[in-house]
Amino acid sequence: MSLYLEDIVVGSQYVTEEVTITAEEIIAFATQFDPQPFHTDPEAAKTSFFGGLAASGWHTAAITMRLLVTQGPELAGGTIGAGGELSWPSPTRPGDRLHVRITVESVTASKSNPSRGSTMLRVETLSSDGELRQLFTVRTLLFARS
Amino acid sequence: MSLYLEDIVVGSQYVTEEVTITAEEIIAFATQFDPQPFHTDPEAAKTSFFGGLAASGWHTAAITMRLLVTQGPELAGGTIGAGGELSWPSPTRPGDRLHVRITVESVTASKSNPSRGSTMLRVETLSSDGELRQLFTVRTLLFARS
Repeated sequence: MSLYLEDIVVGSQYVTEEVTITAEEIIAFATQFDPQPFHTDPEAAKTSFFGGLAASGWHTAAITMRLLVTQGPELAGGTIGAGGELSWPSPTRPGDRLHVRITVESVTASKSNPSRGSTMLRVETLSSDGELRQLFTVRTLLFARS
Repeated sequence: MSLYLEDIVVGSQYVTEEVTITAEEIIAFATQFDPQPFHTDPEAAKTSFFGGLAASGWHTAAITMRLLVTQGPELAGGTIGAGGELSWPSPTRPGDRLHVRITVESVTASKSNPSRGSTMLRVETLSSDGELRQLFTVRTLLFARS
């Protein structure tokens, strides 16, 4: 069921299934978008800051978006983020099983346009051990039913 | 030449070449990571918020990272972002030619670890008309030479 501005409840939470990330996927993504040895070369990664192969933060972000869009709240009109605060407290590693926890922090109706609003979503990407791999606090568009 | 903490100058700026993004690339990326009709289906996109096909913000982010890593400042130890403020003021469209402008906003030595520091980089992703597609203000690790 599509969720409109009127349907979003502050404090509600959504938790996705887990998805496993492999070394092959890490290397393929980074080769295309973030070609640095600690993301593309398991041997060279050992002597890097990360001490071993680590996923590009943008790969973690892209996986997070897939989980958010396919298993998070189904927002009417789509999941459209305007922007927010993004951080990577720990690196994503080969074999990590990631899931996403989405918490509705606030809902705001637009003052200028009654058909619009926005919600602040706290989007946490977690390993199966509960380690935080990414935190994104994002202002997301909402559309009013009426 | 690799740049260490001691080499980074506040106010210095780096501008990359342009890269063109195609509808096929937009659809392929979004199919994998952000499967929403306005990113994957040019027809359905016409009646969406975007009024036509638009790239996933994460696709813009990934292209930005490729330009930053391959054509931006060559940081010793790699370009390792801890996090920052990310926004997409306007959507990336098929045929957009994007370039990235990186500005060093500040440099800070670590108080606890003399071999480390960080820099705040303002990373602007711009269309050939100068429209801002993405703004990322990111704290990035630096390593000291000594």
